Amino acid sequence: MIYTASQLETFTRNIFIKMGSTAQDAETAAKVLISADLRGVDSHGVARLSGYVRLWEKERLNATPQVKIIHETPSTAVVDGDLGAGLVVAPKAMAIAIEKARTAGSGWVAVQNSNHFGIAGYHSMMALDHDMIGFAMTNASPLVAPTFSKSKFLGTNPISVAIPAGNQPPLVIDMATTSVANGKLEVLQRKNMSMPEGWAQDENGNPTTDAAILKKGGAMLPLGSDRTHGSHKGYCLSSWVDIFSAVLSGANYGPWVPPFVAYIDPISESVGKGIGHFVGAWRVDAFRPADEFKHHMDNWIETFRKAVPVDGEEKVLIPGDPEREITAQRLKDGIDLLQPVVEDLMALGQKMGVEL
Amino acid sequence: MIYTASQLETFTRNIFIKMGSTAQDAETAAKVLISADLRGVDSHGVARLSGYVRLWEKERLNATPQVKIIHETPSTAVVDGDLGAGLVVAPKAMAIAIEKARTAGSGWVAVQNSNHFGIAGYHSMMALDHDMIGFAMTNASPLVAPTFSKSKFLGTNPISVAIPAGNQPPLVIDMATTSVANGKLEVLQRKNMSMPEGWAQDENGNPTTDAAILKKGGAMLPLGSDRTHGSHKGYCLSSWVDIFSAVLSGANYGPWVPPFVAYIDPISESVGKGIGHFVGAWRVDAFRPADEFKHHMDNWIETFRKAVPVDGEEKVLIPGDPEREITAQRLKDGIDLLQPVVEDLMALGQKMGVEL
Repeated sequence: MIYTASQLETFTRNIFIKMGSTAQDAETAAKVLISADLRGVDSHGVARLSGYVRLWEKERLNATPQVKIIHETPSTAVVDGDLGAGLVVAPKAMAIAIEKARTAGSGWVAVQNSNHFGIAGYHSMMALDHDMIGFAMTNASPLVAPTFSKSKFLGTNPISVAIPAGNQPPLVIDMATTSVANGKLEVLQRKNMSMPEGWAQDENGNPTTDAAILKKGGAMLPLGSDRTHGSHKGYCLSSWVDIFSAVLSGANYGPWVPPFVAYIDPISESVGKGIGHFVGAWRVDAFRPADEFKHHMDNWIETFRKAVPVDGEEKVLIPGDPEREITAQRLKDGIDLLQPVVEDLMALGQKMGVEL
Repeated sequence: MIYTASQLETFTRNIFIKMGSTAQDAETAAKVLISADLRGVDSHGVARLSGYVRLWEKERLNATPQVKIIHETPSTAVVDGDLGAGLVVAPKAMAIAIEKARTAGSGWVAVQNSNHFGIAGYHSMMALDHDMIGFAMTNASPLVAPTFSKSKFLGTNPISVAIPAGNQPPLVIDMATTSVANGKLEVLQRKNMSMPEGWAQDENGNPTTDAAILKKGGAMLPLGSDRTHGSHKGYCLSSWVDIFSAVLSGANYGPWVPPFVAYIDPISESVGKGIGHFVGAWRVDAFRPADEFKHHMDNWIETFRKAVPVDGEEKVLIPGDPEREITAQRLKDGIDLLQPVVEDLMALGQKMGVEL
């Protein structure tokens, strides 16, 4: 079933309003959530909407958070998200980072007491309009095993960096620190297909091609897949994200990160509040004049576009190209939701008295 | 042949003094260079000393640089390294970042007009004594092919993050953004052995196990190895490092990064000055009290140490553990240099009138 982005945004906004959110918060949440569908990250878009509602029903998500700064310096702050949706909390944190960067050159905000923030790329890209470089990270429920470990202690912990250019579109990095997105395993599992080795391990830490392995005690693998190919580096990156998002902010880290799904109860012990994010911005002209920077970014991008592709590939891509292509296509043709997602949204709409 | 770290430091210091460096710069350069040998990163240690000298002989390295700030804001600066050795320039840049963090909460310094800076970990770790988190990146001569590309447009472009803890040792990340270090290929090549697939590609972009492939037009691969296992993420990370080190600072980026080896002439065209670095520091108590942070870092580290290891592995490591073990061992037993390295240093000592 095909919907326009604006239909899905309106629906999402109305659901948040039914939960009691302010009009402004509901609009932000809808924009962030649907930006994932527009960028082709279907696992983080409207398909997750009823997940947020179920958390709210269990009082694990606050629809009317009072987001506030609890500590700050000229270029840093810590924000308490008041258990709000990360969709709402993270953009507020990012706005603070941008404000700090305006006067101090850079701004950094660690967030505690939040929930899932959608795609990291939305938040980092907020900096672009201000001629700033944006940065966003978040930790997430543990699914990933460190190198040599059977224990799942890390989330898919993404890193996003958004860098403005001049005539070229911005360069946007938005990557989980695993070898592959969890969504790819789910797709193969639904089709009853196997997956390549190097995406996950079984409960004993052995290689596997079983796409359903996470349900059988398996774990996702850090970027690099195995020690020989550098999985310890993916483990390092994921650790960095976890520590910045939670140890710096006062949120839960490692095995204590609360699950995003409402049907799994959070463990009773905690080492902080909610999940954590870390966002920031560097003002480009805190380093060199923005025009000069953009001129060289254009040159960088044009140069890399001219790299000679390997046989069988048409071209070399720039970080952000694939998502931009999907956005253009989906703005034109609409967003085709899978039947189970449509049914889920229909049921949600009926329950909340909102029409899709 | 076994040397103590202090013998190698003295030798290196004296070589720099013979090039005309100040006593202080020579001491810094020696300390940074030998820290690589102590941490087991032999490819970046004293084995590279004569490389720096050869660059100096060709007037591509200035032994008496006047490192200066050319632009700044409360939390950022750009530094011109005056074509000095990165070994000397980067610690000065890091000292500026630390100073800025003291007042602004965080400090960021982009460096242009520099040369190879040794191991990234030395520079990030400078922040630890100040209860700060350190950050360091550098670009490097192009050896790495972006995903889907035959062209070698990126260096091994490392990222380092050093995070202080309390009773536990600090967590230190120091990683090239490739699937493997170039040094590993060199070792296998010397032994006439093949290497695993996923470390490099041949001149047409095909998988290869030939450890000598770089001499035959091949390229190293970004972390992730191939598109299926996330090499586009390694490519993203490497791009980030290149842009921050050079586009932000005004140094050379991508294919324009000058070669570190003196026998390859730099290309005549340039898009900036020398190679670039990007370093920074966040003050821990710009986010939460240092004691509280360290308590949770200890808990994080102790928790991850207790992860259940996979069959056949003794334990799960924390980023920084392997290097720390090697340092302890080499401080005790000395540093065993390969015969060709010893001969090279002997010849260098004779030429420069310095005794090893």
